[in-house]
Amino acid sequence: MIFDVTILGCGAATPTSRHHPTSQVVNVHDKLFMVDCGEGTQMQLRKYKIRFQRINHIFISHLHGDHYLGLVGLISSLHLLGRINPLHIYGPPELKELIDLSLRVSDTYLNFPLEFRATQFKEKELIFEDKTLEVHSFPLKHRIDCCGFFFQEKPRGAKITKSMVSSLKLIPSEIIQLKKWNDVTRETGEVLVAARICEVPPAPRAYAFCSDTMYFEALAESISNVNLLYHESTFLDSERVRAKETFHSTAGQAAQMALKSNAQQLLLGHFSSRYSNDEDFLLEAQPIFSNCVLATEGLQVEVPFRDH
Amino acid sequence: MIFDVTILGCGAATPTSRHHPTSQVVNVHDKLFMVDCGEGTQMQLRKYKIRFQRINHIFISHLHGDHYLGLVGLISSLHLLGRINPLHIYGPPELKELIDLSLRVSDTYLNFPLEFRATQFKEKELIFEDKTLEVHSFPLKHRIDCCGFFFQEKPRGAKITKSMVSSLKLIPSEIIQLKKWNDVTRETGEVLVAARICEVPPAPRAYAFCSDTMYFEALAESISNVNLLYHESTFLDSERVRAKETFHSTAGQAAQMALKSNAQQLLLGHFSSRYSNDEDFLLEAQPIFSNCVLATEGLQVEVPFRDH
Repeated sequence: MIFDVTILGCGAATPTSRHHPTSQVVNVHDKLFMVDCGEGTQMQLRKYKIRFQRINHIFISHLHGDHYLGLVGLISSLHLLGRINPLHIYGPPELKELIDLSLRVSDTYLNFPLEFRATQFKEKELIFEDKTLEVHSFPLKHRIDCCGFFFQEKPRGAKITKSMVSSLKLIPSEIIQLKKWNDVTRETGEVLVAARICEVPPAPRAYAFCSDTMYFEALAESISNVNLLYHESTFLDSERVRAKETFHSTAGQAAQMALKSNAQQLLLGHFSSRYSNDEDFLLEAQPIFSNCVLATEGLQVEVPFRDH
Repeated sequence: MIFDVTILGCGAATPTSRHHPTSQVVNVHDKLFMVDCGEGTQMQLRKYKIRFQRINHIFISHLHGDHYLGLVGLISSLHLLGRINPLHIYGPPELKELIDLSLRVSDTYLNFPLEFRATQFKEKELIFEDKTLEVHSFPLKHRIDCCGFFFQEKPRGAKITKSMVSSLKLIPSEIIQLKKWNDVTRETGEVLVAARICEVPPAPRAYAFCSDTMYFEALAESISNVNLLYHESTFLDSERVRAKETFHSTAGQAAQMALKSNAQQLLLGHFSSRYSNDEDFLLEAQPIFSNCVLATEGLQVEVPFRDH
């Protein structure tokens, strides 16, 4: 089952020739979720050949321009391209005001329902759920209200291979019981032992998106045992004071958070344009947390399975 | 004296891999004026190495997203890059609401004064003036309120070459009189004849920006005798009905308007993404108005002098 993250932009504050503003597409079991939508996101979708209309849910962390200014353009393009399916947007309450005003002044009446759910910034909250996935928002500490998003796979039922189904001639009612780890006694007296027939499914995985935030210890609880942690590292430790003043983190602090939350892999992003070499972020983070990669536009990272 | 137009984007409606949304930079005597500011304009400024802070005046024609969605991001970047000089913005009254709301929700207090002037859509109006230039807005006919902009050089005084100044040992008071075409009689009785000493300056030039609009004859008056006319050609004549329904023009209609307004050169832009070959716009327009070029990102067009 696919569970990966594609980086559309990982620069901080203002777009540069090296980095686009923040946006990502999270693919969970072939459903696409967008996280943040900085200016130019729709051009990035085209560049990486991601079909606009496959995105049904967009999560916006906060209302600094580099995290949402591409949203109205994307909504407008979805409309012009003939969308009719609902689009679900999750973000701060004022985002609805911004969208409504933009649609009003352009005299646009969308052909599709736009379902808006306001996020809050006090506690972790379940904001999306389907058969296989839960998404929670959780508070970050930034200059304005800001939250992260936690994508958690639901536990899967036991797995029975097709060859096992055919060799034992399993019927649907037997499969249902076995997948619940219940043994089944057939009319013939034959006992089907679930533990022998079924395979243990892989453990559910989780992805956490943390941007933008200063370092604060309580964050580790919200993202505890995450498999893949995207964490902002706007600055290097040499600018630790500036990081705190601007409610951002350093690469070293991002690595500390990965360690503290027992993350499996760390994906660094939201790089300030003041640094000419992104490798410096990696050099700072890796001595603290070794399983660490740098975000870059177009990069696709699979959420890793945890070794048992 | 420089008077040229650089195209940053000339696509219609939604950005594609071929065209960016509308934006241009007009250079009049080394002062930069921006016209429209679609999503991604600041990235285009970087690409074409145009210094952000040289732009002091931004004109927005109307509030369809492809003409203004890059503005808030550009304002934010100007702020982050340390701007202190005033920025003058001209656009529909609701644009101020949009900017104010975006700044409020991001808790941003600009370091520089933002001077906003609301445009109106009833008649031609002088909205900017300095020593060498006048800019007028003028009404277009579009689905929502929309205006074009007319950049008109002011007539220059007579020109006196440096060699003439030194050979005749002209003093400042004499130069001032001669440049007004007044003859000067020196104390010695010598008469300095302006018509012999001064050169006739080139005729003032004008640039008109018309996007978006349906064809309507009265437009020709607003842009009469323009040297360079940028006119939208969203469609080809085969889609004339659709053009009218959506308040847009065809390439043929743009050429008709160039002819009717006695333009000297026509620059076609705002191409719908439904056409795969921009050359088709040229093929349609040139039989009607031969001095015609296609806009494309990065193209710089000098506003031509008129032959006498």
